[in-house]
Amino acid sequence: MSYNLLKGKRGLIFGALNEKSIGWKIAEKAYEEGASFVLTNTPVSMRLGQINELAEKCNTIVIPADATKVSDLDNLVEKATNHLNGNFDFVLHSIGMSPNVRKGRTYDDLDYNLLSQTLDISAISLHKILQTCRKRDAINEWGSVVALTYVAAQRTLYGYNDMADAKALLESIVRSFGYIYGREKNIRINTVSQSPTVTTAGSGIMGFDNLMDFADRMSPLGNASAEECANYVVVLFSDLTRKVTMQNLYHDGGYSSMGMSFKAMNIYNEGLEYEDVKNDKSHK
Amino acid sequence: MSYNLLKGKRGLIFGALNEKSIGWKIAEKAYEEGASFVLTNTPVSMRLGQINELAEKCNTIVIPADATKVSDLDNLVEKATNHLNGNFDFVLHSIGMSPNVRKGRTYDDLDYNLLSQTLDISAISLHKILQTCRKRDAINEWGSVVALTYVAAQRTLYGYNDMADAKALLESIVRSFGYIYGREKNIRINTVSQSPTVTTAGSGIMGFDNLMDFADRMSPLGNASAEECANYVVVLFSDLTRKVTMQNLYHDGGYSSMGMSFKAMNIYNEGLEYEDVKNDKSHK
Amino acid sequence: MSYNLLKGKRGLIFGALNEKSIGWKIAEKAYEEGASFVLTNTPVSMRLGQINELAEKCNTIVIPADATKVSDLDNLVEKATNHLNGNFDFVLHSIGMSPNVRKGRTYDDLDYNLLSQTLDISAISLHKILQTCRKRDAINEWGSVVALTYVAAQRTLYGYNDMADAKALLESIVRSFGYIYGREKNIRINTVSQSPTVTTAGSGIMGFDNLMDFADRMSPLGNASAEECANYVVVLFSDLTRKVTMQNLYHDGGYSSMGMSFKAMNIYNEGLEYEDVKNDKSHK
Amino acid sequence: MSYNLLKGKRGLIFGALNEKSIGWKIAEKAYEEGASFVLTNTPVSMRLGQINELAEKCNTIVIPADATKVSDLDNLVEKATNHLNGNFDFVLHSIGMSPNVRKGRTYDDLDYNLLSQTLDISAISLHKILQTCRKRDAINEWGSVVALTYVAAQRTLYGYNDMADAKALLESIVRSFGYIYGREKNIRINTVSQSPTVTTAGSGIMGFDNLMDFADRMSPLGNASAEECANYVVVLFSDLTRKVTMQNLYHDGGYSSMGMSFKAMNIYNEGLEYEDVKNDKSHK
Repeated sequence: MSYNLLKGKRGLIFGALNEKSIGWKIAEKAYEEGASFVLTNTPVSMRLGQINELAEKCNTIVIPADATKVSDLDNLVEKATNHLNGNFDFVLHSIGMSPNVRKGRTYDDLDYNLLSQTLDISAISLHKILQTCRKRDAINEWGSVVALTYVAAQRTLYGYNDMADAKALLESIVRSFGYIYGREKNIRINTVSQSPTVTTAGSGIMGFDNLMDFADRMSPLGNASAEECANYVVVLFSDLTRKVTMQNLYHDGGYSSMGMSFKAMNIYNEGLEYEDVKNDKSHK
Repeated sequence: MSYNLLKGKRGLIFGALNEKSIGWKIAEKAYEEGASFVLTNTPVSMRLGQINELAEKCNTIVIPADATKVSDLDNLVEKATNHLNGNFDFVLHSIGMSPNVRKGRTYDDLDYNLLSQTLDISAISLHKILQTCRKRDAINEWGSVVALTYVAAQRTLYGYNDMADAKALLESIVRSFGYIYGREKNIRINTVSQSPTVTTAGSGIMGFDNLMDFADRMSPLGNASAEECANYVVVLFSDLTRKVTMQNLYHDGGYSSMGMSFKAMNIYNEGLEYEDVKNDKSHK
Repeated sequence: MSYNLLKGKRGLIFGALNEKSIGWKIAEKAYEEGASFVLTNTPVSMRLGQINELAEKCNTIVIPADATKVSDLDNLVEKATNHLNGNFDFVLHSIGMSPNVRKGRTYDDLDYNLLSQTLDISAISLHKILQTCRKRDAINEWGSVVALTYVAAQRTLYGYNDMADAKALLESIVRSFGYIYGREKNIRINTVSQSPTVTTAGSGIMGFDNLMDFADRMSPLGNASAEECANYVVVLFSDLTRKVTMQNLYHDGGYSSMGMSFKAMNIYNEGLEYEDVKNDKSHK
Repeated sequence: MSYNLLKGKRGLIFGALNEKSIGWKIAEKAYEEGASFVLTNTPVSMRLGQINELAEKCNTIVIPADATKVSDLDNLVEKATNHLNGNFDFVLHSIGMSPNVRKGRTYDDLDYNLLSQTLDISAISLHKILQTCRKRDAINEWGSVVALTYVAAQRTLYGYNDMADAKALLESIVRSFGYIYGREKNIRINTVSQSPTVTTAGSGIMGFDNLMDFADRMSPLGNASAEECANYVVVLFSDLTRKVTMQNLYHDGGYSSMGMSFKAMNIYNEGLEYEDVKNDKSHK
């Protein structure tokens, strides 16, 4: 079902990889809602994923770009606005990766070159995209920029490692640039802090399945899916949310406002009981 | 322009008084987007305002109710669901008033009976509405409840008085009931924290015009208007925001994330300069 | 060990009941650090507890007062300042009780008279204390007021019920009155948001022991004890924290900044495993 | 006046430059309170400042180190623990600098090499210090680490530029490492978010004097001074605050909880009036 919320709008979507990725779902939904847009991802990601398939579905093209390279972004923005025959009304940033996590470096044994890469890929890339767009005046008045983030920016989750710091930096860039781009061109910039989601990115985190179970039972509405996230992001791209900016918007079934739910506590209680059972056995 | 976002949805709207009030704008917008709903306000407010005019425009009725009285609410919910021929998909709470402010009592000279009234009218009324609806099972699965609030719940503004405490209580009720109603019926409950807005309610606050000017210059996108607020609330009533709950959502042009803007600082700088000018004169 | 942090300071302590209560520990510690103070509690609590024993230990008196009654507070402040031969340098508010919880009313079946009592006892009492002190000018310049609170004011915990709303209201009163009393007399007002603690008050909450276990394993430093809380509050009463005001200060071993710890997740994982074990058995 | 709060404690202090710097005041106060410590700063800063004078006063030595270089830190930690004849009980991080600000690059025209430097100097340096200490096991159980920060991490201030992002990153590192170091060794890590302060660092920010005036009039207790900050930090190093960790602690006279004060609004009102006066003149 479509509402034509993005009819006539043009956009740029970073980070669609395969059909599990949130960026993919957002692209599909934006297309459904009447938008035209250009897809982009790194050359490597493009080989791994099925992004060309998505482009076909959405009647568009993919322009490869490494979002950490200003020259790539410059080229991307030029070509994308040419292809779309106009400037962007919306931009999606759905990019995150920690080489420290990939290499199994724990947070008290970080490699600082890899940390720089984590920050560059996952956070500074947003600044580079925005600065490139601003220099080329490539986003229309009242345009909307959304970056995806995670509650780890506010609350430490074991194993999430330097990605937590990258997300905190990302959210700060959203505020800092949101001020500049807001006052100059009425462009709004927000983050959506999404429930843990089964994506290629998420699955790298240690113990991810059980953490998702915990989040699901903690959230009164359960975890938000990638499709539901796409709905929310489309709304943030639409003209109905023009005065929302510099915000971190939780899209998480209520998780962020929960201290403890009955459902999650029940599992925890069983864990304590199981500990007792096992201790009893081992003491016999 | 309409997107049919609320097509087929039924609702209940508290707090529309006259065409300046945000509740009024939300009603108009919800009607435009295809919703049917019942309007309600206190008998007194109904005499002061033009709510019947609004009802006519929106092809609906007004059912008077004092939202602090459970018996009134019980009657309202029964009649409204009857009129609508079904349960509610959305509820708007746009109610707030401080008898202490009205009587000119300062925050260090509160009348405690009046404080109880402030809390009852502006915050506990939401609990009473929700508890009444829940007992009658009057809100549909995946329904959406929105209450309007103000940043004074987080940051003290001189002269806002016990309304700040009422708003903090209101936001807490949203979280507490959001958990219950979410886990039981997938109903979401949020507050929208709106820019200062020229309404009958807002104008009671001392020095309100200049405060609005300050907020406007602080906000990169300027203050949000009542119409823009209506757009945002409609989005929160729609099916596109189903997993957002227990949140306080700033709709304020970026104000809440600002420490100091260039524009607002310029006026402040002039104030300091003017002080100097006047001091110089008085010292001659 | 004593540092003489409160040497020569006078105070008023609400809420010491028995040797488990945090108020009790704070009184002991304040005495150790050189303060003189008056103890107070309701006539009923005084019969239940051993507060006279504490008074003896701390070389002081108990003046009974119901903190919801302005006339009681007026009498208390007059007598206490007389007894101490001077105004207060610090005030402790450690008062909280929900008749709804006691009567087993769930949050979607609140008795509104009882809700009023919850708010009056647990939150508005602080305003009454402050307003009474201010009218009598009974707190010295650079005095310090601390009220105890709990993270439920920010994040919903099942079973915590209307106490969550009371704590949110309490924290708002701290900000609102903190502004007034700060600008007029340089008096600071803060809340300390303490770990769940084994006290007579805490033990009323459903499933409290396991919740404490969860909080303990979530907090990198473990739960904070009542004694440790006393240390922190004494510091906030001292002259070393004069510019801290209108804050909610977490004293919780890090709990409030945690999303998930390794230790807590381990128990949760065992709970999930136990569920599987039991399901397997039942399917055979 | 001394309380002997740090008697017998050993520490490491980064960032004392001259007698205006907060690090300097903290060193003096820590010495007064009975601590012994080593001072450190970059070789360049050492030439600019009077740090040797401070060392003399505090009966200690200065060991030069660039906090962005792990090898320097490694050398520093070894020599400092040798000099002190034991591990650290406390560490102060008071380091921040933006080459982008220095070179006059605005936030929408950042040099990305300089941004990397801003983040490395002002935020990642804390991680490097902590990781180095942890690898050498150089901080004692129940030790305390404090880093200084500013409210710009939460709210955008024009002209504060990429320092806002650096502070947000710093505060995230505090949480992330606070979890690790807390669970392993009971070491706590916090930030103190200080009022704008007249230091060599602060004075680089555009329009700083008037911004300080604004903050001062907004804060019910006025801006906190460097001396007052030193008092607070000493308390956080003491044994009385052992369960406070992963927190951002505002030390700002109440500023962070203010929306608008009467005093600040008065100046703003005069600014608006002055605008009118000048407009009237120019229209004649």
